[in-house]
Amino acid sequence: MSIKVSDLGEKELIRYIIANSKDITPDDTAVTQFDSTNLISTCDMLIQSRHFPANMSFFNMGFKAVTVNVSDLAAMGAKPIGFLLAIAMPKDLEVDSFKEIVKGVLEACYFYSIPLIGGDTNEASEIIISGTALGVCDNPLMKDTYNKGDLIAVTGNIGLAALGFELDTLDNVYVNKSLKPIARIREGQMLKDLASSATDITDGLASELYEIKKDNFGFMIYEELLGISDEYKEISDRLGLDYLDLMLHVGEDFELLFTISRDNLEKLSIDYMVIGEVTDSDVVELTLENGFVERIKNKGYEHYVSE
Amino acid sequence: MSIKVSDLGEKELIRYIIANSKDITPDDTAVTQFDSTNLISTCDMLIQSRHFPANMSFFNMGFKAVTVNVSDLAAMGAKPIGFLLAIAMPKDLEVDSFKEIVKGVLEACYFYSIPLIGGDTNEASEIIISGTALGVCDNPLMKDTYNKGDLIAVTGNIGLAALGFELDTLDNVYVNKSLKPIARIREGQMLKDLASSATDITDGLASELYEIKKDNFGFMIYEELLGISDEYKEISDRLGLDYLDLMLHVGEDFELLFTISRDNLEKLSIDYMVIGEVTDSDVVELTLENGFVERIKNKGYEHYVSE
Repeated sequence: MSIKVSDLGEKELIRYIIANSKDITPDDTAVTQFDSTNLISTCDMLIQSRHFPANMSFFNMGFKAVTVNVSDLAAMGAKPIGFLLAIAMPKDLEVDSFKEIVKGVLEACYFYSIPLIGGDTNEASEIIISGTALGVCDNPLMKDTYNKGDLIAVTGNIGLAALGFELDTLDNVYVNKSLKPIARIREGQMLKDLASSATDITDGLASELYEIKKDNFGFMIYEELLGISDEYKEISDRLGLDYLDLMLHVGEDFELLFTISRDNLEKLSIDYMVIGEVTDSDVVELTLENGFVERIKNKGYEHYVSE
Repeated sequence: MSIKVSDLGEKELIRYIIANSKDITPDDTAVTQFDSTNLISTCDMLIQSRHFPANMSFFNMGFKAVTVNVSDLAAMGAKPIGFLLAIAMPKDLEVDSFKEIVKGVLEACYFYSIPLIGGDTNEASEIIISGTALGVCDNPLMKDTYNKGDLIAVTGNIGLAALGFELDTLDNVYVNKSLKPIARIREGQMLKDLASSATDITDGLASELYEIKKDNFGFMIYEELLGISDEYKEISDRLGLDYLDLMLHVGEDFELLFTISRDNLEKLSIDYMVIGEVTDSDVVELTLENGFVERIKNKGYEHYVSE
């Protein structure tokens, strides 16, 4: 019986591509020397059945397609210079729905100051949007260039979208975050010269921490610093869900996860929450509110691999 | 009854996007000022059921995904600098097939000297490959900057792939061209400073001529210069197909269609075939072998619109 791609999982498939290409430096985007600076480029594809909740409007589908790509630029501290849009749709999609998707893309491009510079359309059995975000950065912020003793911080509350996916019939901060996440492009540019490393949270904090982890380095996160509201715990509980699991292992936050020295933190003028620190423990851990320390599992949203 | 995207057709959908974005200058690629030169960028998506003939190997799917994008760079005379790959696959696709696709991509990247700099994988109901090709060019070759009296030429025989699609059980020049078209990246760079305009032939010569046509300009193509072999006519005839229809209205050639002054043609050191000239007739015409002149119909391969 031959091995299927679902047996390997998305991360392994990507590892295969990287292992066979000497020109890929795995970070949030590609970095290519260009003239006297660097071209920052990234491409992400959104599949309707995978990335768009059932209650997501066509407008928000378009908006999100830009957001997920701009978020990678933000993670590098890049300045956006252009967005390319390739969109495939079922032939019986209503033209008005197509126009709504395009309006969402254009609104997001305006919001993020990234001009739409190219487009292509196609036919497929469901809506598939592939976006390419291009940016420029003289000294891009990589994902694993942190130092022991650095503080770990995020640009905003995490876990909101994860809860929102479970509440798709209500209009609240959780659902809104799941339907219209925002990329932190301005924050990324302001972090560029102050932070020691950055990445964006797409598959959950736990997943990203393991993505950036280097040998001999560890991370200690503090539950009490995660800003988990009583309401969040109550709603999770009512739904029979583990609130920490939602916070750490689902993702779709699009907040920036960054590391920074204490000195530089004082100079930072964006909104942020310090959530932990870089250690030399070689493990990824969480200090719970009750004081106990537990290992954070390397588990996040991943295509194919059933959880 | 609401209008569907199939009622409008691909060209109309793209026109909607362009009309609503002030930053798109419609040519083969986007051209963005970057430092002291120009970033050339393009994104094309290939859908298995639409772009890959049933007999196409996984390797050739990957190769073609690079080819269609590099072909747009070639049409601008750009030097390739990087390729981004986003690929979605059914979860029960065999890993070996996935690896073959990636090998095809890598082989094409090596062939075209365009490094693979980024990759992403996803799950979808069929194989969908979205590629982004990035290049650099100080003075890109646009598609409609021709002059009256310019000669019209192509970098190689057209119509081969079109016949190949009808012969998918045989191994010959037509089938090979349909399964593994080649982008003319080297030729594009050599044309950059000599040609007056260029585009690549994807939807058929007729379609491209109408794409580049400006008011008060016309094109006269000569059937006898198209290099149509007796064999081509025989096979078409045997299949009950109009050989001129195959030559002009199907596409997938990926040859460059360019215009050039007689003086500059003498300096050109690439393979080419002169097929006609730019006139002031304001129409697109073909002089048949028998001497009669007929209007070339504006008809090419287009998603959704049934022919």
